[in-house]
Amino acid sequence: MTPTEAYAALVRRSKEIGIIHSCAALLSWDQQTYMPPQGARWRGEQMAYLSALAHQKLADPQVGEWLAQVESSTLTADPQSDEAANIREWRRSYERAIRVPAALVEELARVTTAAQQVWQEAKAQNRYKAFQPHLERIVSLKREEAHALGYSGHPYDALLDEYEPGMTTEEVRSLFTHLTRELTPLIQRWSESARRPDTSILRRDYPVERQRIFAEAAAAALGFDFSQGRLDVTAHPFCTGIGPGDCRITTRYNPRYFSEAFFGVLHETGHALYEMHLPAEHAGTPLGTACSLGIHESQSRLWENQVGRGRPFWEHFFPRLQQTFPHALADISLETFYFAINEVRPSLIRVEADEVTYNLHIVLRFELETEMLTGNLQVADLPGAWSEKMQQYLGLTPPDDTQGCLQDIHWSFGGIGYFPTYTLGNLYAAQFMAAAKAQLGDAELMRDFRNGQFRRLREWLIDHIHRHGQRYRAQELCQRATGEPLRTEPLLTYLREKYEPLYGS
Amino acid sequence: MTPTEAYAALVRRSKEIGIIHSCAALLSWDQQTYMPPQGARWRGEQMAYLSALAHQKLADPQVGEWLAQVESSTLTADPQSDEAANIREWRRSYERAIRVPAALVEELARVTTAAQQVWQEAKAQNRYKAFQPHLERIVSLKREEAHALGYSGHPYDALLDEYEPGMTTEEVRSLFTHLTRELTPLIQRWSESARRPDTSILRRDYPVERQRIFAEAAAAALGFDFSQGRLDVTAHPFCTGIGPGDCRITTRYNPRYFSEAFFGVLHETGHALYEMHLPAEHAGTPLGTACSLGIHESQSRLWENQVGRGRPFWEHFFPRLQQTFPHALADISLETFYFAINEVRPSLIRVEADEVTYNLHIVLRFELETEMLTGNLQVADLPGAWSEKMQQYLGLTPPDDTQGCLQDIHWSFGGIGYFPTYTLGNLYAAQFMAAAKAQLGDAELMRDFRNGQFRRLREWLIDHIHRHGQRYRAQELCQRATGEPLRTEPLLTYLREKYEPLYGS
Repeated sequence: MTPTEAYAALVRRSKEIGIIHSCAALLSWDQQTYMPPQGARWRGEQMAYLSALAHQKLADPQVGEWLAQVESSTLTADPQSDEAANIREWRRSYERAIRVPAALVEELARVTTAAQQVWQEAKAQNRYKAFQPHLERIVSLKREEAHALGYSGHPYDALLDEYEPGMTTEEVRSLFTHLTRELTPLIQRWSESARRPDTSILRRDYPVERQRIFAEAAAAALGFDFSQGRLDVTAHPFCTGIGPGDCRITTRYNPRYFSEAFFGVLHETGHALYEMHLPAEHAGTPLGTACSLGIHESQSRLWENQVGRGRPFWEHFFPRLQQTFPHALADISLETFYFAINEVRPSLIRVEADEVTYNLHIVLRFELETEMLTGNLQVADLPGAWSEKMQQYLGLTPPDDTQGCLQDIHWSFGGIGYFPTYTLGNLYAAQFMAAAKAQLGDAELMRDFRNGQFRRLREWLIDHIHRHGQRYRAQELCQRATGEPLRTEPLLTYLREKYEPLYGS
Repeated sequence: MTPTEAYAALVRRSKEIGIIHSCAALLSWDQQTYMPPQGARWRGEQMAYLSALAHQKLADPQVGEWLAQVESSTLTADPQSDEAANIREWRRSYERAIRVPAALVEELARVTTAAQQVWQEAKAQNRYKAFQPHLERIVSLKREEAHALGYSGHPYDALLDEYEPGMTTEEVRSLFTHLTRELTPLIQRWSESARRPDTSILRRDYPVERQRIFAEAAAAALGFDFSQGRLDVTAHPFCTGIGPGDCRITTRYNPRYFSEAFFGVLHETGHALYEMHLPAEHAGTPLGTACSLGIHESQSRLWENQVGRGRPFWEHFFPRLQQTFPHALADISLETFYFAINEVRPSLIRVEADEVTYNLHIVLRFELETEMLTGNLQVADLPGAWSEKMQQYLGLTPPDDTQGCLQDIHWSFGGIGYFPTYTLGNLYAAQFMAAAKAQLGDAELMRDFRNGQFRRLREWLIDHIHRHGQRYRAQELCQRATGEPLRTEPLLTYLREKYEPLYGS
């Protein structure tokens, strides 16, 4: 077999694995949307089978042989080539697949399946003690997993790499430390300002069917193509790319709260635009796959916050919103509405936090999970450590663990290393937006938004982010798109420029 | 490996193939319900992959070795055992999978994919000539397939066996000849009777949302468990069993015609009750799989026609129907309605035919497809032969091929051998219903129906049909359930007893 043939075999295998994953993605979408309740058990069998099949196809020793053959050839000599990028990512996935012993994979699957069930009950009943032994086992298994995967710096590096390939714990810590130092006084100033928005206007009657029609129109205006996608209702909103030409988003409607569904739809639309503009000809290979969770999240945050909570956006949409919800908004001015959707207020629950305080929720989780992983923080001491940090960062103390360390599902499914990608997404989003403004013209872009036009921004994102798939690691993608490595300043500048006028300083 | 181990390996492989098929079933359901239009191409890749994977898992030489080892052991000595039934059906599937050369399988897939596209256009434009070369190729390939599969009597036996295992062409011909001879004068008498129902009452305004609610309530009354299933809307109604606890049906609503959706839902509910009561512990193996298409169709026809077009059923449901559609039905009597839904009238289109004339549409197709397969009828002469037989059986001549030999999709996907199962279903349904009445008491059963109670009939069907899966071939199942082999008399008796009072003789 020649190196070219080995490469072709890897492409075929990669597409095969991609198809298996895409079948699982559709099954998972169905499970959360339309599956009848009693279908859950069989669905579990289907999912377990597809997951094992994909793992077997990836961890196959033949894949290792094909990789070695291509790597020792001249096929990957040009680091900018398609071949080099695909081989780099296949090597990474292959190593992750073969280094973790099958017994550990199975034990993790078993333990986290049970833990999610226990977590749900523990959260409902505010009983951290019930969840604690499960979390202890998960942390211990993830520590084993990190050792099996290997790392040069911090054991957390090995876990972070699953979600943000190439990023290190030290880099995250450095970014987060700076961000925290700068954000803390801003949050204090804004949340203690005498100027307060009237957020009660968002909690009037917003009939669900009208919410749906308005949100679909906004998603379509941003570029969501409903001939290639759908919007459905689920308990927990998400976006899933099934394959080229098929990307689905979900939301949930609250008839007495406008923000929940609408900004959720903008968020998922941002994810979907990324999926919809990955190069279809590379579907199933790294070049046709999103770069990292942080970059994915940058797309959702950019459209939700940078665009969708901006004044120009609402200069276009607010009159239409008033026409759609005359009973709720006829007496409300654009300025009142704009301030209401941009309240800064420390709160206990991450998923309800505003775009400023949100980041400190992430910093807190990052610090706690790294400390648990190294053993510097005992799992038994998590609730106390959580309260202490909430007080330190946001000046609040959770009244119970349900509103504290039990609020998120992530640790129960073993997702240690996942949280940082949310704030990395915020940082990337601000830096991308600043670069797009610099390159396309700030005034021109804002005029676009005021006219309900988003084509130029979308095309900039397609050109600089979406179409590259995994050709570059996130850091290099950022450098190429913005001319700089990832920094905290663009986010801090964006926040200051937006909120200082609102809060008076 | 011991025979017991070989049998266990076969069970595992069979469940694996069952899971793959069930993933494909969900993907296919999604394609027809909610998939965005541009997802079709990728969906094709997913379906092709799963189909090839299932074939590879079945045609694996190891399967042949396991089969041989079990067959030469004492494990299958008792023909009534689980092992004997599973081995019998695995052997049949395995032989069908390995006997047809891969090149022929691929060529058939290629030709029928193109042919379905062409058929759709040819039907829309009434251009048989455009479809003819595709059908010629399909008939020729199906002839090759029949030879590859092997047969002892008629080449059509090999194709029929895919849908109705164990049934022969000669048996079908004998049943159909007798049925035609008896039905022809009945149809003539009833359709020429001076008594005519007023079917215009079915073509009043039936608001779609009310149709849906009424149909769901009726399906639930028959036993459709909505915690294990769904009802959705598709262009072509169907039922699909995804797996234990998950069976889905579809319909289409016509706001100006009551019968289309309602009787469609009863029909699909009959299929679904069968799927829902296959033994879950045998899921993925023959013992957990429906017996044959004819038996499957018997369940849909039984609930749609024997029950759902019967007077006792409507004694319960008609007052409720009037309450649901007061504008359409307030002035209508039960008798008028009952006669309207039971009109006997020769017509050109199979799927719109009444339960009496329907069977002659099937006899016609069976005769034409067997003759095409042997070459006694040239594909070029199909339109003429179709017209001749329509005149002979139903006294009508199609004005064009769209309403003639182009009306059905089956031949375009290579489904030669499929049509007979529809009328076999009618025959089985009548024989099962007669047996249920004899065993449970006709008067008692009809009193159940008049009270909207269907539990005893349902349980009889579960006990005599559903729970056996493929333990017995259809003929033996029929013998065990009814004490007799399949006969035409029960259907003919049922029709005479129902229609002679309506039409006066």
